[in-house]
Amino acid sequence: MSRVAVLGCGRVGSLIVNRLTSAGHAVSAFDSGAASLEKLREPRPARVEVADLSDPDLIRSIADDHDLVVGALPGHMGLAALEAVVETGKPLADISFLPEDPLPLDARAKETGSIVVYDIGVAPGLSHLLVGCAALQMDGVEAVKICVGGLPLDPRPPFHYAAPFSPIDVLEEYTRPARFVRGGEVVECEALSEIEVLELPGIDGPLEAFLTDGLRSLIRTVRAREMVEKTIRWPGHAEKIRLLRDGGFFSTEKVSAGDGEIVPLEATAAVLFPRWELREGETEFTVMRVEVTGTKDDRGVKRRWDVLDFTDRETGETSMARTTGLPCVFTVEALLEGRIDTPGVHPPEALASAEGFLDDLLSYLRGAGVRIEKTAG
Amino acid sequence: MSRVAVLGCGRVGSLIVNRLTSAGHAVSAFDSGAASLEKLREPRPARVEVADLSDPDLIRSIADDHDLVVGALPGHMGLAALEAVVETGKPLADISFLPEDPLPLDARAKETGSIVVYDIGVAPGLSHLLVGCAALQMDGVEAVKICVGGLPLDPRPPFHYAAPFSPIDVLEEYTRPARFVRGGEVVECEALSEIEVLELPGIDGPLEAFLTDGLRSLIRTVRAREMVEKTIRWPGHAEKIRLLRDGGFFSTEKVSAGDGEIVPLEATAAVLFPRWELREGETEFTVMRVEVTGTKDDRGVKRRWDVLDFTDRETGETSMARTTGLPCVFTVEALLEGRIDTPGVHPPEALASAEGFLDDLLSYLRGAGVRIEKTAG
Repeated sequence: MSRVAVLGCGRVGSLIVNRLTSAGHAVSAFDSGAASLEKLREPRPARVEVADLSDPDLIRSIADDHDLVVGALPGHMGLAALEAVVETGKPLADISFLPEDPLPLDARAKETGSIVVYDIGVAPGLSHLLVGCAALQMDGVEAVKICVGGLPLDPRPPFHYAAPFSPIDVLEEYTRPARFVRGGEVVECEALSEIEVLELPGIDGPLEAFLTDGLRSLIRTVRAREMVEKTIRWPGHAEKIRLLRDGGFFSTEKVSAGDGEIVPLEATAAVLFPRWELREGETEFTVMRVEVTGTKDDRGVKRRWDVLDFTDRETGETSMARTTGLPCVFTVEALLEGRIDTPGVHPPEALASAEGFLDDLLSYLRGAGVRIEKTAG
Repeated sequence: MSRVAVLGCGRVGSLIVNRLTSAGHAVSAFDSGAASLEKLREPRPARVEVADLSDPDLIRSIADDHDLVVGALPGHMGLAALEAVVETGKPLADISFLPEDPLPLDARAKETGSIVVYDIGVAPGLSHLLVGCAALQMDGVEAVKICVGGLPLDPRPPFHYAAPFSPIDVLEEYTRPARFVRGGEVVECEALSEIEVLELPGIDGPLEAFLTDGLRSLIRTVRAREMVEKTIRWPGHAEKIRLLRDGGFFSTEKVSAGDGEIVPLEATAAVLFPRWELREGETEFTVMRVEVTGTKDDRGVKRRWDVLDFTDRETGETSMARTTGLPCVFTVEALLEGRIDTPGVHPPEALASAEGFLDDLLSYLRGAGVRIEKTAG
């Protein structure tokens, strides 16, 4: 039995608390709000505490008191927490998806002995690990393509979308330029471009996929001539969002409206979010296709994985929380078992070199009910 | 030389002031803002005055001092002004496009001797007069269709639109349910429905037309089995506006946004209007097709008019101001000459029975450079 601190008990954090507690660990659950902690399911963790998780001193003291820390914070709080844990030398599995690159902390983690695995969700997370493993099995990588999305099963017009996580993060994803690799060079373009139609196993009817900015660490860790990340939605969504963007609805510059001033993006968020909320009992799913092509012994080779998961009807856990939280839970166990033992700050694809890690993770996910199909060629 | 008071000197009012002054009348121009009056072109009217045109006493006193009044006010001020003029017994030509039906004032106008012609612009206005004349020439009217729009010649994405008049009135037109006649019954449906593609003479490329609420008095004055008014835009516009409407962007219910509250419609207006402004020197056009089918001596007959006008490059007058203001100016002259001599409150189609009125109006518009094609069958 290990003592694990989970920082942040949102949808994903609370699933992690639940799974680790069920597995017999002494879990301490921290959140800035009492409401999130009260919603934690049975079995209850050993300790729950309302805490100011933006305070590095507090994070350090929590890390000192535990064997391992899980970071499941809002992105903007992620880096400070990561830095604080590194200082204590304790291991950290993080799914805060910080906007910054945490690699500059790698040297310090090596000094303190801290083992940090970050971005260890579904995408980034499982996606990157699959790409990393495929790359290790090839002499050279030609093309990497990750398509991923979380969607309502029975979408409502006009946007045919409901957000399984914070809608403001969805809008952020739609407005941030997409970085990808073309002809071996890192290039940047508007998100929501290069819309294509996709047919995926287990999903009735076509979907669409368009460029977003999700490659993150892969851009520097895997060399490929072509590498893209695309977001999956029901058809027509991207064009509608582009209309809003091109029409000025995502602008962050104040304009006069009525008797006061508004920020268009804030107004747009206020209009869309009630419409983008998953309804009580509504089924959503997470779907991902990862494709890697390259060469091995002068022959063309191809690896493809299709991942699909649905809302858990019994627990009400969303597929997005499941597919994001379960790889993190698996990584926590691997860290506690000493299976990952190199100090430093590691993106998920770095775990590809840990013997059997990916296969075991895939088995673990399948055991939890996640559908995973592999196609090799 | 007659003394004419023009109430309101916006885009259309100022054109009316200019034309009537050029024609030799002693025009008094009134507006609530000095800026509009300062912008009046040469030749300057006899008198300009900043005035509170929401004050019925003032309107009555102005009417008493003049031979005729022109109403070119914002719609919400129209009815009070019309009522005040009726009390004085003076004639009124009105293009305020009041939201209310002014017919209840008909009896009082007959008592005071006031002759009121309202809605005498392009549509309503010329449109209704054309329908009225066609109906007079038929034994029975089968179908009436009015398609009309004011558009930029070189539209900018994503909305491919710029508003030749107040954009808030455009949004109002998009949100108000459309009343029309189907199978002889008055029915109502959402605006922006029944989108069709149109090819019109003089315009490169297809346009689209969709239901809006513009029939007004025609619904009760002309009996037909089918009668619709549609608004013309560049293709794709209606679907984009529908997305905004269906997505909640036209809601008038306050919602929390950022640190405060917003009314989505106000926020949407604030985002769209700067994008919907006609640019300095930008060419716009007004296009209208009016079709009436019916029977005459047991044979099917058809009348069709195509009207097209562009921004006047020399004066900068928009086609929308021209096509709206010129029928009003022509009606002022007809009223002053005694050509329209029946006291009461008259919609434009009532002028169809005035001998030669429509033909003279069409000649007048052609003389001013408006293209009008008639097709009979």
